[in-house]
Amino acid sequence: MCELLGMSANVPTDICFSFAGLMQRGGGTGPHRDGWGIAFYEGKGLRAFHDPQASVDSRIAELLCVYPIKSRVVISHIRQANVGAVGLPNTHPFTRELWGYAWCFAHNGQLDPVLFNWPLRHFKPIGNTDSEYAFCWLLDQIHQRFEQRPEDPAALAAVIHQCCEQLRGIGVYNMLLSESTRLFSYCTTKLWWITRRAPFGEARLRDRDLTVDFYRETTPDDVVTVVATEPLTANEQWQRIAPGELVVFHDGEVESRLVSASGAGS
Amino acid sequence: MCELLGMSANVPTDICFSFAGLMQRGGGTGPHRDGWGIAFYEGKGLRAFHDPQASVDSRIAELLCVYPIKSRVVISHIRQANVGAVGLPNTHPFTRELWGYAWCFAHNGQLDPVLFNWPLRHFKPIGNTDSEYAFCWLLDQIHQRFEQRPEDPAALAAVIHQCCEQLRGIGVYNMLLSESTRLFSYCTTKLWWITRRAPFGEARLRDRDLTVDFYRETTPDDVVTVVATEPLTANEQWQRIAPGELVVFHDGEVESRLVSASGAGS
Repeated sequence: MCELLGMSANVPTDICFSFAGLMQRGGGTGPHRDGWGIAFYEGKGLRAFHDPQASVDSRIAELLCVYPIKSRVVISHIRQANVGAVGLPNTHPFTRELWGYAWCFAHNGQLDPVLFNWPLRHFKPIGNTDSEYAFCWLLDQIHQRFEQRPEDPAALAAVIHQCCEQLRGIGVYNMLLSESTRLFSYCTTKLWWITRRAPFGEARLRDRDLTVDFYRETTPDDVVTVVATEPLTANEQWQRIAPGELVVFHDGEVESRLVSASGAGS
Repeated sequence: MCELLGMSANVPTDICFSFAGLMQRGGGTGPHRDGWGIAFYEGKGLRAFHDPQASVDSRIAELLCVYPIKSRVVISHIRQANVGAVGLPNTHPFTRELWGYAWCFAHNGQLDPVLFNWPLRHFKPIGNTDSEYAFCWLLDQIHQRFEQRPEDPAALAAVIHQCCEQLRGIGVYNMLLSESTRLFSYCTTKLWWITRRAPFGEARLRDRDLTVDFYRETTPDDVVTVVATEPLTANEQWQRIAPGELVVFHDGEVESRLVSASGAGS
């Protein structure tokens, strides 16, 4: 299984602290040695870093732990390969352009190979993972439904949730997705989140001997949500996303929650 | 004007030496302070780094000068903004997926705003530069002509050349483009290249006090072509691409040259 990390914030925020924790799981405290990637939105622009090497040994990961890139939406992934060889074309997060927006996607889980029979139109995979195929299929569905970006974010969220439910029907599908403003977080088995806001306190990483005092790093108006496969800190209360639930974050806040029609426990 | 740098090689090769020279022009020996980017193909995979800051001050550029990422096709760009604000969405190289290939593009020059009336179908710009618009238009043309990747590389090169000629009709259009195997290099005003092969010698950068002995860095079978807006080295013989000419490099060698029907001097 892979590890996901996402962020949504109402001000450009660096994710160095959480990233430092996640990177330890890439061959350090975790078995995920098969590459990693991280993508930062800056407005509509997207800056992505990919490395097919283990994150714990990566010079680029090392730089990103100390080089604060400030962003309002971030998606990161470290990989333990199941479907698809280790290599750059199979390294998450994946990106595609739709409606003049850079979409970014990362997946944790494994899907039945029946997926590869699902028809693709507009978007084609570059590598050979189930994850990238699912991303292409999902964007195709969105594109077929909306020729242009819909005015109503709820309409978009409903279509994304419906597609995620279909994907959950053929396997394990934990997902982070964004088009630059929203962070769409869908859970099949494991996805947790925490929202930090004033009064800010101190947080201690579970995977590394590192503590940050967010009070010193933030202003009182900041709202920052972090989403991850497992809680990253030991001294804070994380919330679990239910199986079949899509939580949409916007500016660090929960904008909407869509639960499974077939029940949260399915 | 911006600076372009491209590489095509028959073995995975690092571009640290040439990149170190180019980066000096981003606010050092040149005026191009408005961001830079570089993209490395590794098989069909593409690893891109973008920074809207001046390259000469960039921590990421500094790392890439010493961190050898080995690739057979590289495209890099440093920017001096004319059309479009400074920022990540307007930072080259741009990428889009077509036929399951990651296409990558960088442009030097300026095009008449009439360009923005040319119709787009499949690909839409994320930022607001003439360059990204031209890239989207070019890929749309290729896509309209070839639903799938054509077997014959000459057929693809002919369509690309035809489109480049149309773009040259409305301004200055120096371009580097790739789909992972070929480096398409089109010139309106300034584009130079050099092919290095055995017996390898020593090269001295024009922009920085740096010399490399390629004999020590290579094997006798290596063939490496570098393309740039201006020759990067002071002691080697670079070749100029003619106005209206498209040179297609494959595995470091010239695969084809398509010249303008309206004459090289136009």
